[in-house]
Amino acid sequence: MSKVFTHMTMSLDGFIADPDDGIEDIFDWYGAGDVSVPSANEGVSLTVDEASAAVLRDLIESAGALVSGRRLFDITDGWGDNHPMGVPVVVVTHRPPDDADRWPRTTFVGDVGTAIERATEIAGGKDVTVASASVAQQALTLGLVDEVCVSLAPVLLGAGIPYFANLDGRHLLEDPTVVQGRRAVHLRYPVRR
Amino acid sequence: MSKVFTHMTMSLDGFIADPDDGIEDIFDWYGAGDVSVPSANEGVSLTVDEASAAVLRDLIESAGALVSGRRLFDITDGWGDNHPMGVPVVVVTHRPPDDADRWPRTTFVGDVGTAIERATEIAGGKDVTVASASVAQQALTLGLVDEVCVSLAPVLLGAGIPYFANLDGRHLLEDPTVVQGRRAVHLRYPVRR
Repeated sequence: MSKVFTHMTMSLDGFIADPDDGIEDIFDWYGAGDVSVPSANEGVSLTVDEASAAVLRDLIESAGALVSGRRLFDITDGWGDNHPMGVPVVVVTHRPPDDADRWPRTTFVGDVGTAIERATEIAGGKDVTVASASVAQQALTLGLVDEVCVSLAPVLLGAGIPYFANLDGRHLLEDPTVVQGRRAVHLRYPVRR
Repeated sequence: MSKVFTHMTMSLDGFIADPDDGIEDIFDWYGAGDVSVPSANEGVSLTVDEASAAVLRDLIESAGALVSGRRLFDITDGWGDNHPMGVPVVVVTHRPPDDADRWPRTTFVGDVGTAIERATEIAGGKDVTVASASVAQQALTLGLVDEVCVSLAPVLLGAGIPYFANLDGRHLLEDPTVVQGRRAVHLRYPVRR
C-alpha cells in the first residue's frame, strides 16, 4: 500500500535550517562516512556511514513521487527538474512559474490535499514523500500523513526554521524504528490513527 | 569525575509540557511497562519497560544533587523537600520563600552559575542534574553542561514550553548513546568542547 511520509533532517531543538536557510552542521551526516549513495542528480553526491546508507537507500527506493513547497522549489531552482531522489515532483503553489515548461517532470498544484492526491497517482503504488516543512505541517493537520521521519542531528541551533509548527493540535505517534547513524539518529514514527 | 547533565522528557516537536504545564501523553513512558523503579518519594511510583528502567536507574544512581528553577519548585511545592531522585535540591531564585525552613534539604541561590557550583559541592563527586528548562538553557549558554539528555516522546504537541530556547547560538553535540524504551527514545549527548 502506498504511504505518505514526511522526512527532514532536524536539529535536536527542532529546526531544519538556521534563520538564513543555512544547513551547516545539521547535514553533517550526508558526508560522515565512506559509503556512496547514488543520487539521480549528478550534482549531488552523498557519502555516509553504513547505517545511514541503508536508511537513505530505503527512502529513495520506496519513493514514487515527492511533494515540495514553493519556497524549497525556488531555493533549489526546482532541482533542475531532476530531484536527487529520482522521482517526479509536485509543487504546492498558488502561482505556477511563468516558465513552468523549464520543469517538464514537475507538476504545480494549488493546495496540499490535491498535491498529495496527484503525487499518489504519479507514485503508482510507491510511497509519496513530503519534503517541505510547511507542506508537512498542513498534511499532518489534514490527517494525510502515515509516517513522520526525522534524521535527528546532534546540534542545538538556538533559532531557525522549525520542522513542526502551526499544527492544529497534538498528534500521537507510534513508537519509532530507530537507526543510529553517524551524526544523525534516524527515527520513523507511524502516525497513530 | 562529576558531570553536569540536563534531562527532560520532550515531545518530538521540542516541548516539555503543553501551554498549560500539562504533561499528558509526554510522560506515558513513566507507566508503559511493568518494571517498578523505586523512588525516594513514596508518592511517586514509576512502572516502565526494562530498557527505560535501566536508563532511569542509571540517572538516579549517578545523581548527587539536582538544580531546579523557581517555577518548577513552586509547581511541585518543592517536592515536599523529598525529590523522587532522592538528592538535595538547589533552586535558582532571586527571592527565597519566606518559609524556606519548610525545605531543610533545599538550597536557594541567586544565579545559575552559583547554583551549579553549590550543587557540585553537595554532590560530592556524583553528578549534578539540571531539571528545569530555563536553568538548562542558561547553563548551556554558560558552557556548564557536560551532557544533554532527552527522553524523546512519540507525540507532536503543536505548542507548549520548549526544552531549548533562548540559547545564545548553536551548540554542537557528540553522537548520543541511544536506548529505545516504550513510549520514549532515550538520548544522551555529550556536549562538544
